[in-house]
Amino acid sequence: MLKNVKCARCVKCGKEYEAVPNLTNCECGGILDIIYDYDYIKANLTKEKLAARENRSMWRYRELLPVEESTPDTPLRVGWSPLYEEPRLAEMLGIKKLWVKDDGQNPTASLKDRASAMAVAKAQEAGAKIIACSSTGNAASSLAGNAAAAGLKTYIFVPERAPKGKVAQLMIFGANVISVKGNYEETFKMSAEAIDKYGWYNRNAAINPYLSEGKKTVALEIAEQLNWEMPDYLAISVGDGCTIAGVWKGLKDLYAIGFIDKLPRLISAQSLGCYPLNKAIQENKPWEPMEENTIADSISVGVPRNADKALNAIRESNGLAVNVSDEEILAAQKLLGKTCGVFGEPAGVTGTAALKKACEEGLIPSDATVVSVVTGNGLKDVANAIKSAGEPINIKPDLDLMVEEFAKRGVIVE
Amino acid sequence: MLKNVKCARCVKCGKEYEAVPNLTNCECGGILDIIYDYDYIKANLTKEKLAARENRSMWRYRELLPVEESTPDTPLRVGWSPLYEEPRLAEMLGIKKLWVKDDGQNPTASLKDRASAMAVAKAQEAGAKIIACSSTGNAASSLAGNAAAAGLKTYIFVPERAPKGKVAQLMIFGANVISVKGNYEETFKMSAEAIDKYGWYNRNAAINPYLSEGKKTVALEIAEQLNWEMPDYLAISVGDGCTIAGVWKGLKDLYAIGFIDKLPRLISAQSLGCYPLNKAIQENKPWEPMEENTIADSISVGVPRNADKALNAIRESNGLAVNVSDEEILAAQKLLGKTCGVFGEPAGVTGTAALKKACEEGLIPSDATVVSVVTGNGLKDVANAIKSAGEPINIKPDLDLMVEEFAKRGVIVE
Repeated sequence: MLKNVKCARCVKCGKEYEAVPNLTNCECGGILDIIYDYDYIKANLTKEKLAARENRSMWRYRELLPVEESTPDTPLRVGWSPLYEEPRLAEMLGIKKLWVKDDGQNPTASLKDRASAMAVAKAQEAGAKIIACSSTGNAASSLAGNAAAAGLKTYIFVPERAPKGKVAQLMIFGANVISVKGNYEETFKMSAEAIDKYGWYNRNAAINPYLSEGKKTVALEIAEQLNWEMPDYLAISVGDGCTIAGVWKGLKDLYAIGFIDKLPRLISAQSLGCYPLNKAIQENKPWEPMEENTIADSISVGVPRNADKALNAIRESNGLAVNVSDEEILAAQKLLGKTCGVFGEPAGVTGTAALKKACEEGLIPSDATVVSVVTGNGLKDVANAIKSAGEPINIKPDLDLMVEEFAKRGVIVE
Repeated sequence: MLKNVKCARCVKCGKEYEAVPNLTNCECGGILDIIYDYDYIKANLTKEKLAARENRSMWRYRELLPVEESTPDTPLRVGWSPLYEEPRLAEMLGIKKLWVKDDGQNPTASLKDRASAMAVAKAQEAGAKIIACSSTGNAASSLAGNAAAAGLKTYIFVPERAPKGKVAQLMIFGANVISVKGNYEETFKMSAEAIDKYGWYNRNAAINPYLSEGKKTVALEIAEQLNWEMPDYLAISVGDGCTIAGVWKGLKDLYAIGFIDKLPRLISAQSLGCYPLNKAIQENKPWEPMEENTIADSISVGVPRNADKALNAIRESNGLAVNVSDEEILAAQKLLGKTCGVFGEPAGVTGTAALKKACEEGLIPSDATVVSVVTGNGLKDVANAIKSAGEPINIKPDLDLMVEEFAKRGVIVE
């Protein structure tokens, strides 16, 4: 029995379920939301208690997480990623303050580690020895890594087109990887069939309601790292919607227990090549599937699986929906690299690209304070980094030649 | 004036120098070592004081570092990487306890961030606005990232053969990259000439004596994370020798101020394709240049630039010199991945490969406690990971086929 959780409630029909470890969707097909007992949490967690805690991982927020007291922390150090204040970039963008949360600094190099660590914890509560999911990217590699460290087996279904590098990560972590001759939809269906047949623990996004509870820890950390003084805006990239929904959940939790007295407006960043959720916001109508046509592969999601929670988060926060081109994404990647020393993957920097665009379009006032979350490490996708970064000068070892070549690029060697 | 530092002393001729920020080699060509005032440090640092410190980066050890009190922490969060206890791997290796220190969890994904952060701090003390180095790998990318975050310019010289991915990291961080048509020796010489001509701050390894003082923080952290109870052995990969020398320096510092009462024996791990330092130990004679022939590119150093300090460290610690083949390195990469959820680059896991070999050869007693340091992230070198990891099964979406294909590989789906 979870002492801090009342139940799980369907966001569509309102039906309530007991919060057992192996929850999936509501029988109506809706996504479940974990409902907390905030009175219990308030009585058991104070800012002072938290400040005194040694634990520097997502598990420092146990009172706000849907796990049993006896469930051990998962082995890899997930969370407590750095939040950098970036005065130079704030000045360039024309805003008062900017912080960059580098969530690429997680064990398998993406924010998804937070969800996968939660999946591992809940699988252990369920007595499961095997976890499965279908994914081509960060969800897969984070599950493989976190499960391996905990001694759990994984079956991971990827479409044949999955990039070799990401498959290599899975194989290194010892996952049983099934490369499916088919598209993503067929891969997903095969995983669902196998999970059903073998009774594996399900880590498919937007089916297991605990995953976004893991993801919300990024918001809890931002709040604590800012000493509970919230920014005006929080920018984050959006694909299937689980992450932005998790962020909003974390913020609302903190508001409910009185740790923060203000909720930031969310900046929902999608790619112009695929923005079904932002389109729904912008046109104020139900979302519709879109083509998937962007280099930001982790958010190239034409049929978002967590649309309900995500749209609700953006609307409730009085958020902004901002779409950016691949060129703007690559430019943001370079800008973050050379100004902040932060190297994000394309989907990882889409939030910053959207923030920049919103600033340029006058949507953000000059006295605004903003947090931009970088959700994944650029080393995951070196091919696109090369596109954005350009080639170095290539010369014989001769200093005069060097000066000459740099001059052509507008660099005065001094 | 550094209050905690007496001077810099040449390890070859003993000549002493004032510890100014832009120190390079001794006039005799020897490498300098920073000499501390341990009485001053003892009077100013206690374990309790340290335990109460919020700072979770390498700069929490300021009293043991050669920087002015007024020098700010560098911006990126370098250090305080996780130390994982690994009971399952310890059992497989037949030792009592094993911890893995994952230093791939640094901002630019390698231990070299510790040295580059130090270089940035000292460059700022020297009033320099530009830092330069020659390197093909982690030293370069860590310098580029840490300098960018601090608003300093960099000139980085790489041989033409440098892998595209690493060059892309440099370009993303906004470094001025010179790809030199020539080998590494010519590249190094060109960088030296340019540094000399333009007066840039020098971050070339084994020339700037402050760099290994940054690297030593990995040992300080291990000791503190183990609550000052040191292991019997510490395994680490060795290339030019700066890292193992830094590790030993950190351990001796802690011993000198009474924080630890035992020094571990170092396991110096080199590749069978290039092991000039281990050869010198094994044959007990001066080191000689060797061919460079290993996939572990970061330690493929035929002419180690910090041989004196490294050999001294191995000998003083009564260390073991263990050489491993590329196959053993790739096997260790997979072993760490599937048992610990830690993905290291080939050079990064060479210490673990050597530990495994030493265990198999009966060199390590079964009651031994060991720390193995993983020095860089596997995402830096995906091509070799693919070699070690193998290919997944590739099938049509059909569960029976899946069961059949896994059976061929000895995996019973259940």
